[in-house]
Amino acid sequence: MANSKYEYVKKFELDDTLLPASWLVVRIDGRSFHSFTFDHGYQRPNDDRGIGLMNECAKRVLEEFSDITFAIGMSDEYSFVLRPTTDLFDRRESKISSVMVSYFASCFVYYWKDYFGDVPLKNPPTFDCRIVCYPTTQCIRDYISWRQADAHINNLYNTTFWSLVNSGVPNKEAETMLKGTFAKDKNEILFTKFGINYSKEGAIYRKGSILYREKVDVKVKEKPDGTPVYRKQSKVILCHEDVIQDKFWNEHPTLLEVNW
Amino acid sequence: MANSKYEYVKKFELDDTLLPASWLVVRIDGRSFHSFTFDHGYQRPNDDRGIGLMNECAKRVLEEFSDITFAIGMSDEYSFVLRPTTDLFDRRESKISSVMVSYFASCFVYYWKDYFGDVPLKNPPTFDCRIVCYPTTQCIRDYISWRQADAHINNLYNTTFWSLVNSGVPNKEAETMLKGTFAKDKNEILFTKFGINYSKEGAIYRKGSILYREKVDVKVKEKPDGTPVYRKQSKVILCHEDVIQDKFWNEHPTLLEVNW
Amino acid sequence: MANSKYEYVKKFELDDTLLPASWLVVRIDGRSFHSFTFDHGYQRPNDDRGIGLMNECAKRVLEEFSDITFAIGMSDEYSFVLRPTTDLFDRRESKISSVMVSYFASCFVYYWKDYFGDVPLKNPPTFDCRIVCYPTTQCIRDYISWRQADAHINNLYNTTFWSLVNSGVPNKEAETMLKGTFAKDKNEILFTKFGINYSKEGAIYRKGSILYREKVDVKVKEKPDGTPVYRKQSKVILCHEDVIQDKFWNEHPTLLEVNW
Amino acid sequence: MANSKYEYVKKFELDDTLLPASWLVVRIDGRSFHSFTFDHGYQRPNDDRGIGLMNECAKRVLEEFSDITFAIGMSDEYSFVLRPTTDLFDRRESKISSVMVSYFASCFVYYWKDYFGDVPLKNPPTFDCRIVCYPTTQCIRDYISWRQADAHINNLYNTTFWSLVNSGVPNKEAETMLKGTFAKDKNEILFTKFGINYSKEGAIYRKGSILYREKVDVKVKEKPDGTPVYRKQSKVILCHEDVIQDKFWNEHPTLLEVNW
Repeated sequence: MANSKYEYVKKFELDDTLLPASWLVVRIDGRSFHSFTFDHGYQRPNDDRGIGLMNECAKRVLEEFSDITFAIGMSDEYSFVLRPTTDLFDRRESKISSVMVSYFASCFVYYWKDYFGDVPLKNPPTFDCRIVCYPTTQCIRDYISWRQADAHINNLYNTTFWSLVNSGVPNKEAETMLKGTFAKDKNEILFTKFGINYSKEGAIYRKGSILYREKVDVKVKEKPDGTPVYRKQSKVILCHEDVIQDKFWNEHPTLLEVNW
Repeated sequence: MANSKYEYVKKFELDDTLLPASWLVVRIDGRSFHSFTFDHGYQRPNDDRGIGLMNECAKRVLEEFSDITFAIGMSDEYSFVLRPTTDLFDRRESKISSVMVSYFASCFVYYWKDYFGDVPLKNPPTFDCRIVCYPTTQCIRDYISWRQADAHINNLYNTTFWSLVNSGVPNKEAETMLKGTFAKDKNEILFTKFGINYSKEGAIYRKGSILYREKVDVKVKEKPDGTPVYRKQSKVILCHEDVIQDKFWNEHPTLLEVNW
Repeated sequence: MANSKYEYVKKFELDDTLLPASWLVVRIDGRSFHSFTFDHGYQRPNDDRGIGLMNECAKRVLEEFSDITFAIGMSDEYSFVLRPTTDLFDRRESKISSVMVSYFASCFVYYWKDYFGDVPLKNPPTFDCRIVCYPTTQCIRDYISWRQADAHINNLYNTTFWSLVNSGVPNKEAETMLKGTFAKDKNEILFTKFGINYSKEGAIYRKGSILYREKVDVKVKEKPDGTPVYRKQSKVILCHEDVIQDKFWNEHPTLLEVNW
Repeated sequence: MANSKYEYVKKFELDDTLLPASWLVVRIDGRSFHSFTFDHGYQRPNDDRGIGLMNECAKRVLEEFSDITFAIGMSDEYSFVLRPTTDLFDRRESKISSVMVSYFASCFVYYWKDYFGDVPLKNPPTFDCRIVCYPTTQCIRDYISWRQADAHINNLYNTTFWSLVNSGVPNKEAETMLKGTFAKDKNEILFTKFGINYSKEGAIYRKGSILYREKVDVKVKEKPDGTPVYRKQSKVILCHEDVIQDKFWNEHPTLLEVNW
């Protein structure tokens, strides 16, 4: 049963190396999460357990792949940013994509009970994933801004929609009421009808979640006299800051720095 | 916070449609499964729990994606074959690949305890995935043969290697003994040293696992007089037959049939 | 001036190997040939000099690249078919495409005067080129049929249009008259207004031009007694036959035959 | 003869859009120019007619495609640089590549006699072409440096080699003499044996040819009193300057400037 006569089929595996020196975004999206979240009783407009689990999975991905410099997530999606200098898996697209999305998915099941406790996971979830190349730092900044602006737009809509629905307005009617409205209209509805000042809502909902690495002092041992000994360690930080304005980036200048 | 100024970044998502009318193979491989199986105490050379779990995941994938006509798996890998006529996710490579591999991975965690019982899953596993196009039915037959021939080669090696090691031969020495040997040499070692007739070993180890769909009669109800009423339903079948020779394909002529 | 520090830029040349074992079509199209043919006084609807020159260029391409098994051309385009077995330039897409289109273009200028005599070539022409993979022989047959059916449709339209225009109907009015007409309407116009039986028009206009290779007996020398000595040689044949029906292919069974 | 049943074959034309916002290099290379130049009696190491013709073709390409900002050529190759902002042919790779290389090739034949006079062009030349994306301005500068450094290395070698051969050293022996030598060794040979100070050789040979666009004052008419009226026009400039050092780029700051 010699294998050599069949090995020619390996030649059909075409090269899928991503353009060197470009930024890479690996974006993961939940598949059919509308019904998944419904089936599992997610709260509307936001479910803290669900957000916590997504952030846990994303944090694990960052810890597993040190070439990721930054991540931003909201709802059922997460975008991971790899530096232009990365040579992870020789920059093979399918390898990077499949390894990250499968790890994210298996983390989701693995850590489910840490966030949902007794709520049973009824079926294994699925995610899709794509990789996009961005040539310049400006592009990658704009990509990140795009996702955060989208998070805002969706969350403002959802907050208004579910406030209406939770107050007794039928879904269809709430939809109709919001059709064609601007941000200020939704802010107005929230404030006058429900006493909600949207800008005071939690940043975790309005801004999404940001993950990045920071060198922090970690106490590694104590001297005999009890003096603590610290060492710099890289740690994944979770925050919900604005990443559209320059402030965050000025405070974390190394995140999008490129050193060849 | 208008989003429109950032939306240009969507244009960087390039089209990755796979060639129409070609067979697609989606191959999933465990990442770092050497250490994963060691950490979880897999038996050598084959662990029935591990094989059962892989087959369970693969079966779920077939049930989820009806465009898969056939699958073959062994060790920590599985190949899924989609017909040339498939239009699943508009044949977008990253979509098909990521959805299947993430579902496989989350099934692996989800069904772990059904196969490993009290053995705790220490960490979420990862899989990589690639898609390969094959233009002709001959190519896809040869691809399948390649995997099954490989399964045989690896299992014969592993069976011999672990028989030696389990009998007290140090790993390094067993490796040296097997270097450069042919199939008949390994068969000889197995028979003379361990009384093992390799061809009598379980087909599940020698041939790997095959999944395909078959129309079977399923009893759907009973008439008032007790006569059972059957209906044809598509069911995923697991077997361990030889798929290199023509016999299997002659018996299942529709599996690789292409109807436009 | 060491070069090594810059050589990293070579790594940006990504692999563009075409899928093995698939048929390749290399299609060349004249760029801006509407104005090119106008500037050079081409006759309407068909210019025999222009057709002759296109066929000359295509024939030269076949003679240069023996992996081309068949070609079909009409108007300012030509499609070259390469067998699935071809390993020309290691199946690199940009290499095959650029070499063929540049040779076609330089032939066009080189042989211009052989067809247009004293008519000066006012400017160097340009062609675009793309390569398309087709997995099966049925696909490639359908591709060829598509081009010949298109040749027919366009030529019937052009013949009718220019008959009207040449008889004094203004261009715009001729366009309007033909808008939404069917083949039988155009045949009717041609017959009743101009006495033209379209099906009697030259096959070169109705069917386009076909090139393929045939083994023919070529007299290579004479014996001392004057007996000619023949040897089989491969020769490029030009014809204008129907290649949609099976007849042509039954008569030339080797053209689309695949021998691995 | 309805065409619709065949039109499905158009779906096999896959999208080949190049990454937005990246620099594009279109590199054209003569195919088999070793024998082409031999057959046409090119002088060694450099033939001014041949260089002139290559530069003529490249200049025509720049005049035809205003999105090209810069070009560098040497021997039988030319690289054309397109800005990241270009939307030429919707950035379709095969379109850009084929149109440019076919135009270059047809120019080569068209302008041949302007440079080679009575020397007949024995056969139509062929060029290959590839497109490479570069994400950053640093990359594109390094690409340009790579080509110019290569031009220097090759020309120093060729100058030394042909000086030896033209002085009577057999080809094989000249090759052996130069194997493993450094730049300084070749400079030494040139100076001591042939009295050639390599750094005084023509920049056109040492640096290759550079093409770029410049706004220049062009006299468009005269006023009645005879005062000339000038207007800024874009003109293609040919030079042979060093483009590895910063000087050239400081003097032409707009060439690699990116304005979104």
